[in-house]
Amino acid sequence: MDEIEKLNDLRQRIDDTDLELIKLLEKRLNLVKEASLVKATLGASSRSLEREEFLLQDRALKAKEHHLPEGLIEDLLKRLLRESYKDSAQRTFSCTYKTSKPIVLVGGNGGMGQVFAKYFKASEYKVKTLEKDDWENVAEIVKGALLVLICVPIEVTENVIERLAPYLDEETILADITSVKAKILSKMLSAHQGPVLALHPMFGPDIKGMVKQVIVNAGGRELEKSAFVLEQFKIWGAKVCNCEAQEHDKAMGIIQAMRHFTTYCYGLFLANTNASLKEILDLSSPIYHLELLMVGRLFAQDPHLYCDIIMAQEHNKQLIEQYLNCLKEQLEVVANHNKAEFVKRFLDARDYFGEYATLFLKESGQLLARVNDDKR
Amino acid sequence: MDEIEKLNDLRQRIDDTDLELIKLLEKRLNLVKEASLVKATLGASSRSLEREEFLLQDRALKAKEHHLPEGLIEDLLKRLLRESYKDSAQRTFSCTYKTSKPIVLVGGNGGMGQVFAKYFKASEYKVKTLEKDDWENVAEIVKGALLVLICVPIEVTENVIERLAPYLDEETILADITSVKAKILSKMLSAHQGPVLALHPMFGPDIKGMVKQVIVNAGGRELEKSAFVLEQFKIWGAKVCNCEAQEHDKAMGIIQAMRHFTTYCYGLFLANTNASLKEILDLSSPIYHLELLMVGRLFAQDPHLYCDIIMAQEHNKQLIEQYLNCLKEQLEVVANHNKAEFVKRFLDARDYFGEYATLFLKESGQLLARVNDDKR
Repeated sequence: MDEIEKLNDLRQRIDDTDLELIKLLEKRLNLVKEASLVKATLGASSRSLEREEFLLQDRALKAKEHHLPEGLIEDLLKRLLRESYKDSAQRTFSCTYKTSKPIVLVGGNGGMGQVFAKYFKASEYKVKTLEKDDWENVAEIVKGALLVLICVPIEVTENVIERLAPYLDEETILADITSVKAKILSKMLSAHQGPVLALHPMFGPDIKGMVKQVIVNAGGRELEKSAFVLEQFKIWGAKVCNCEAQEHDKAMGIIQAMRHFTTYCYGLFLANTNASLKEILDLSSPIYHLELLMVGRLFAQDPHLYCDIIMAQEHNKQLIEQYLNCLKEQLEVVANHNKAEFVKRFLDARDYFGEYATLFLKESGQLLARVNDDKR
Repeated sequence: MDEIEKLNDLRQRIDDTDLELIKLLEKRLNLVKEASLVKATLGASSRSLEREEFLLQDRALKAKEHHLPEGLIEDLLKRLLRESYKDSAQRTFSCTYKTSKPIVLVGGNGGMGQVFAKYFKASEYKVKTLEKDDWENVAEIVKGALLVLICVPIEVTENVIERLAPYLDEETILADITSVKAKILSKMLSAHQGPVLALHPMFGPDIKGMVKQVIVNAGGRELEKSAFVLEQFKIWGAKVCNCEAQEHDKAMGIIQAMRHFTTYCYGLFLANTNASLKEILDLSSPIYHLELLMVGRLFAQDPHLYCDIIMAQEHNKQLIEQYLNCLKEQLEVVANHNKAEFVKRFLDARDYFGEYATLFLKESGQLLARVNDDKR
């Protein structure tokens, strides 16, 4: 055989192996689907951390025995787990509070409302919705409700609470999912005398499933009565993160408002320079490609959403000012070519990041490799 | 069988399937290694775009026939291709200019110098290095060189050019790899009368292989004489991107300087707020998690590197001022709760991003799913 024939022969054998691989993946996906159904009848949570840990460790060991390069089987398994989480979004779940009382989702036909409606229904709750046009029947709709969960845009939430409250039974749990917690929680507490629960799901309506999603519990009143709600979230696979309302709002100023604001500004700045995106992309290393993705993606979305997040708290203005001052100082450092000062500030920030800096470097390295994988 | 036994049985079958999967992957990796060796004897490039396109399309089709969820086989193949690129970094390459004349790497023992030394050697070139301590032998080292490639830090590059030039044969190609091109190119052109080539590899010394890496060709003099260098890069699998020096520098002000500068400032700002990173991470959605990774990773690296990039061009100062002005304006918009203005500017920037916005949203969506995959 000459070398070209050899290459063609090897490629044919790779093709054959890939077909086997596809068949094996099909078999595996079917087994996982079956397991998901059995888990549903067992009332088990969508996600078993112990099983996952076992899986990852066991396969890593076997992969090493079979000389697979480090990290390959781990990446593949995580990718497969993603599919099994998606599957589990279609299953039923055991119910943490069996009752004939309904759950009312205010704005239940909106994006987030639909997510919660689907999951509550899949857990055998009776779900009703209260929409804009339903206010004349509000008394009837919320009467005897177990839980009334407000899923409306933030700017109308306070108004909705006011209008709702007079019709709520005293034992009904009043809850919301807006991204600002302190003022909404205090509004709920003053408007309703019964149990209250302030929530903030850290995801949008486009999620593929609830597994691994974070839902913040910012407290409320008579929390023992709403404990089943948090338990239900966990059965769905979500992570419940307890965080006091004020603390939550402070963190969101940074996590949501500041990051979106600086991304928005960077996009405006880029547009201002009128740099050719095509050229920039051609010249980009994976890291800049990634950062450009994160800036550009914002502008494909709803401006009002970002506007609301950025303007949600007065405190955000102060954060922006703080950031602006920081930039001004650094501009001076750069303008003066003050390398020593640059390095000093850099090292101070390194102290702040502590061990996270190297952790982030490693984790992002994996991710940048994936950005490179995607490059044609 | 009761449900628990059923679940255990299914899990056992998943375990067995995974072992088969690992064996199949081992088989595939070995076939790819063999193919890489055959390609080396054929003198073929590290990467065949046609073969990759065929692979991705063919497998996608077969995966669909076998009911695999969309995107799964594509992700797996891209991950496997990464391994085959890494393999190809170990192979030999055909040489695009057979000669007994040496290639001299100035700073060849530095990070980037080592990368090029390795690849040139793997392509049968005779490689010499010129280090700091070798200047007394400079005449002897560069005598009769085919190519002298300067791989030293940017702040000493001009000085190195000056010291080198008097010893270069007129037919020797003088080339460099610094990240600022216009002033270095003009320095090379005035110092050396023979062929000149200005390059900028868009990667660091930590790359796993040359495949898909971008190398910018910013031109020079008597370019027909250095055409073999660019051809050699392509054989290694790199992408050569032609960009005029001034244009390149303008783009780098944005790609490298501005992005690093804003990331640096954001890190300083975060340190300034003294927000708890642990709490922020707990509360973060994948998107903020990713952005935090990208900020934190910077501070695990060498401050001097970033300082040099940010201070490399006077023009960068103007870009920072432009960004700062943009931020100030937006702060006012936010402070005045001017939603209409926010939305207007947002939509203007959307126009600038054009079809890239939705493209980036889609691409980043894939990536964020992977960030979520990594979450424990």
